[in-house]
Amino acid sequence: MNGAEALLRTLVGAGVDVCFSNPGTSELQFVAALDRVHEMRAVLTLFEGVATGAADGYARIAGRPAATLLHLGPGLANGWANLHNARRARVPLVNVVGDHATYHQRFDAPLQSDLWGLARSVSAWQRSSTRPEDVGADAAEAVAASYGPPGSIATLIVPADVSWSDGAAAAAPRPVAPAPVVPAQTIESVAKVFRSGDPVVLLVGGAALRERGLEAAARVAHATGARLLAETFPAVHARGGGLPDVEKLAYYGEMATSQLSGARHLVLAGARAPASFFAYPGKPSDLVPAGTALHELAGPAHDVPAALDALADALGADAPAPRTAAIRPPRPSGRITAESVAAAVGHSLPDGAIVVDESVTSGLSVPAATSGGPRHDWLALTGGSIGQGLPAATGAAVAAPGRRVLCLEADGSAMYTIQALWTQAREGLDVTTVVLVNQAYAILQFELARVGTSGEGERARAMLDLRHPTLDVVALARGMGVPATRARDADELASLLERSFSEDGPKLIEARLA
Amino acid sequence: MNGAEALLRTLVGAGVDVCFSNPGTSELQFVAALDRVHEMRAVLTLFEGVATGAADGYARIAGRPAATLLHLGPGLANGWANLHNARRARVPLVNVVGDHATYHQRFDAPLQSDLWGLARSVSAWQRSSTRPEDVGADAAEAVAASYGPPGSIATLIVPADVSWSDGAAAAAPRPVAPAPVVPAQTIESVAKVFRSGDPVVLLVGGAALRERGLEAAARVAHATGARLLAETFPAVHARGGGLPDVEKLAYYGEMATSQLSGARHLVLAGARAPASFFAYPGKPSDLVPAGTALHELAGPAHDVPAALDALADALGADAPAPRTAAIRPPRPSGRITAESVAAAVGHSLPDGAIVVDESVTSGLSVPAATSGGPRHDWLALTGGSIGQGLPAATGAAVAAPGRRVLCLEADGSAMYTIQALWTQAREGLDVTTVVLVNQAYAILQFELARVGTSGEGERARAMLDLRHPTLDVVALARGMGVPATRARDADELASLLERSFSEDGPKLIEARLA
Repeated sequence: MNGAEALLRTLVGAGVDVCFSNPGTSELQFVAALDRVHEMRAVLTLFEGVATGAADGYARIAGRPAATLLHLGPGLANGWANLHNARRARVPLVNVVGDHATYHQRFDAPLQSDLWGLARSVSAWQRSSTRPEDVGADAAEAVAASYGPPGSIATLIVPADVSWSDGAAAAAPRPVAPAPVVPAQTIESVAKVFRSGDPVVLLVGGAALRERGLEAAARVAHATGARLLAETFPAVHARGGGLPDVEKLAYYGEMATSQLSGARHLVLAGARAPASFFAYPGKPSDLVPAGTALHELAGPAHDVPAALDALADALGADAPAPRTAAIRPPRPSGRITAESVAAAVGHSLPDGAIVVDESVTSGLSVPAATSGGPRHDWLALTGGSIGQGLPAATGAAVAAPGRRVLCLEADGSAMYTIQALWTQAREGLDVTTVVLVNQAYAILQFELARVGTSGEGERARAMLDLRHPTLDVVALARGMGVPATRARDADELASLLERSFSEDGPKLIEARLA
Repeated sequence: MNGAEALLRTLVGAGVDVCFSNPGTSELQFVAALDRVHEMRAVLTLFEGVATGAADGYARIAGRPAATLLHLGPGLANGWANLHNARRARVPLVNVVGDHATYHQRFDAPLQSDLWGLARSVSAWQRSSTRPEDVGADAAEAVAASYGPPGSIATLIVPADVSWSDGAAAAAPRPVAPAPVVPAQTIESVAKVFRSGDPVVLLVGGAALRERGLEAAARVAHATGARLLAETFPAVHARGGGLPDVEKLAYYGEMATSQLSGARHLVLAGARAPASFFAYPGKPSDLVPAGTALHELAGPAHDVPAALDALADALGADAPAPRTAAIRPPRPSGRITAESVAAAVGHSLPDGAIVVDESVTSGLSVPAATSGGPRHDWLALTGGSIGQGLPAATGAAVAAPGRRVLCLEADGSAMYTIQALWTQAREGLDVTTVVLVNQAYAILQFELARVGTSGEGERARAMLDLRHPTLDVVALARGMGVPATRARDADELASLLERSFSEDGPKLIEARLA
């Protein structure tokens, strides 16, 4: 068999059976091999940033890597920003990037570039397969490497002649390294902190925000009186359905500092030490208050839920934490505002939903309106690179047939990877996209004051203004085959949400904020 | 003044007075400084690939660099593919990339990435300004470096604290190095080749495809009987208006080999030695026929038009080459086909137009239908990374008010950077976009057979098929504020083209190939 077929068979054998693709000539052997390896599902995208963002969303929900199929350096570059977000989400992801044939590279043909340097700038593991005999083993190693721990980006570069040449064979899966267990002495040392009687904040992130970790963390907080906070932008946060409602560390430093103030100890479980998202003149980047001692129970690569369970055991924190009351907001009416949008979402959210949140400023009220709702998973923008929402929603829907995906978007961020809608239509994915239109890069309007600029006027404001011309998101969605409607008021928004949740396939709702 | 203002003033002083922008928090100081430096025109884009592609198109027409304004690593990554095309076009281009504040970088905040490694993978020159006192000098050096020769990508990384801190000053422009003149002995040695009586092919590229170089090359060919060929994908090719009509070296190796067969000597002037675009099993990558001697008159960095003039002088090739007859195709009617599209364009093309060609397979007949038309410039996809057409057309229109830009697109390629339409509407640019819809990655359908694949069937073909769902390009354009119409037949296409050329502002025409 040729290299391309060996690659596909190895991936499938290792449990990687979805490939988000945007192929070119150098990847056509993989395309052809799809008809010989039916276990691989190839999902076509119109832009590589959709492919990588979808692989991120897929992995967050499926818990295992998808592959991408990208065309040379430019294809990898187009996917880079969402690989960055995936890297910050610590998901496993296997990039497959075609390259020119090994003997062709010395001609520096137009599509040649510094593919190796580009891959290195975003990958934790990378390799170029130089012989068909190596492709199988390299692919098996790529999958294992992607699992980490923690999950990370593995990029396998496959020259075209390696793909088309015979002499390759599928390789058996490589063992996946388990997440290391936190040593007992660390558990005991952290338990002492909680027993000290001093004020403690427990900051949880990563795998601690799934059901098991949350329950354990909440028991610890309940038993010890510690304050429980969650990292600001989690990869997956299990919410609703009576799960502990954990307050997030705030985005803005001043608010985060206020949440942490008074803590004698800050204990990290799967989260990193608090630092501000951006630097601002005269404001600290390090958000750990002076005089607060930092302790790490478990790093992002550890088995964090097990560490929290062990901590709870050490503290005798057996009593279940109080369950969050099941409360949904009433059906809203009137104008479309951040608050009525939140109420409409909270009122209608179906059980088992996956919420992908890239609503930036417009969706700030939604978390509070959904914490008492049915069980759902919340996927945040982990790496801060906007253009992640629509693709991640696409991949999450591929990973979870039967669950509804609700993608909360803003107009500015939606436009980076709007092409994802076409893939949603093509695959008939159960994604409801709500685009909250404020006709601005509103977050930058806030930030403009915070960064201490001076002298800005009309020309500066024009750079943050999306009113000229107005984006017609309904037209854009319909142009890519996704049924779309504009909600005129909050009541209609709630109705459109409910209808979309009861029907199959993608829907888009445009909501213009008053 | 602060670093941001010093940067803008230095750029403007060096003749860089257009900035294609997609700013974030770390670039807001530049945004604010726009109100203090009115000479800088900032053009907002919704996606960074639009900004970099526009800077490429701008430089091709203006002959000087535009700046970009990009947000950290992900912003640069989103612009990378069109920087690759710009690099292959050898245009000068100054990337300005904001970075986290110097003291903030140790916190590895969510948007932190290997920005330096990423920049290195596509830039010929790069620097990170670490003190406000340095920004002016660094910016001046960036502009000079971008000119090369040949033109290239200069990336200046500016940490946020360097932007906001006082103590900076604008720097005077740095001298731009002129393109080196080809030594007289090289001219004489190449002249001997032409005097040998052996069959010679003169392959011209780069600056040789502007008016002066073309006229000189055509005189040489006319006087010596040499065959004149042009590189396949030129940055700018001056055409029409009686200019010599130069045959292009074919994209496919077999056709190129046939064009070159029988040549005893191949002389390069601003072009690179012919090599195939991709490798194919059993087909040569090196297209220089065995037994053909290769000579370089002038490399891409040289003053190529002067070298061709000197060669013509050395050969006594004073007689003007025959002028291309002024012939336009008749107005077409009937179904929309590759041929009738070409006739409609050739029939209607206005004098002084700029044609941006990313039509891939669907536009193959247009060059022949326009060579006898009025004077125009033809901009090709230099680096093979699709998604360049709409952005380059945007930048070309910014560079050339009063000239009409005609962008020939395909549906597959248009979707990579469709966001460019919004910027065209926002700026009221005189761009007519024709999207030739064939509902497929048609070039890959051709290539699938050429790469020697086997076993492909329905699943492989589905990866190259854009029919499910159908893209409604008219809806997409209207959704971004560009007036758009679908041409029902070739006659209507010609009418819509003519109308668009007579009106101000952008227009889009969708033409579905029968």
